Amino acid sequence: MSARKKDELFLEEAYLEALKAYSLDEVPVGAVVVIDGKIVGRGFNRRITSSSAVSHAEIVAIEEACKKVGKWRLDGATLYVTNEPCLMCAGAVMQSRISRVVFGSLNEKTGAVISKFRVFDEKDIPFKVKYDYVEHKKSKDILKEFFTKKRGHSWEG
Amino acid sequence: MSARKKDELFLEEAYLEALKAYSLDEVPVGAVVVIDGKIVGRGFNRRITSSSAVSHAEIVAIEEACKKVGKWRLDGATLYVTNEPCLMCAGAVMQSRISRVVFGSLNEKTGAVISKFRVFDEKDIPFKVKYDYVEHKKSKDILKEFFTKKRGHSWEG
Repeated sequence: MSARKKDELFLEEAYLEALKAYSLDEVPVGAVVVIDGKIVGRGFNRRITSSSAVSHAEIVAIEEACKKVGKWRLDGATLYVTNEPCLMCAGAVMQSRISRVVFGSLNEKTGAVISKFRVFDEKDIPFKVKYDYVEHKKSKDILKEFFTKKRGHSWEG
Repeated sequence: MSARKKDELFLEEAYLEALKAYSLDEVPVGAVVVIDGKIVGRGFNRRITSSSAVSHAEIVAIEEACKKVGKWRLDGATLYVTNEPCLMCAGAVMQSRISRVVFGSLNEKTGAVISKFRVFDEKDIPFKVKYDYVEHKKSKDILKEFFTKKRGHSWEG
């Protein structure tokens, strides 16, 4: 399987997580953590359901992955997430030593990889992280649909 | 009580949390979240103990505070932390709508408020956060002592 196909496959898995958030009326973002071709952590945004500002999809998936591998370091892991990570989540990627991040849509307001900040491109960054924006139409569309439905409310993703 | 005295008092409370981390051989950082003069969340770094890269003192304290107030928003809250927050934790502060951060020592390698990044000073930042560096000698000294003891290992705070 080509590298691109693999990325799309895991973005699709992240999208399945986003659907769970959508069904709970949460901003629909999902994520999976992959090590050696296997999913070791899954998460979806549950900020309201869990009454926790830090329960973004990426944080939940990283926590699950850490539990699964039994340590805080996730060297060699790739995080797939349906939407570009915010500052907190980009920081969590660095803290967990995840090697690469792939995201399926852009977050113009708070995205920290390309859109609002470019933290992984900073000089002398303490922890190196590769990243790729691999457009995943369904991931983008479900966010659009969610916010259209919520029109009048601003996204504070 | 003067505002400065109050800050020192709550930094001392954060320091008590850092001592708990120290006793577990974790990087000794502690934090408390304060709303209307009352502590609503406490946390200490338990990255190794919890096998979780995201279990920094600030994240743990924010999670506890969210649980206590029963929602993800912590408007009007101040986070007191013994060491300057990293990118993840500065991002978590924004995500939880904490209004102010007070830290007792600097983090030259990964500090995201003053030292390495200055995220709260960025133009067009989506969420405004005030911050103050209020030097708290014991918070600094315990980190120094910890890393002296661990000499040979690098701090990847």
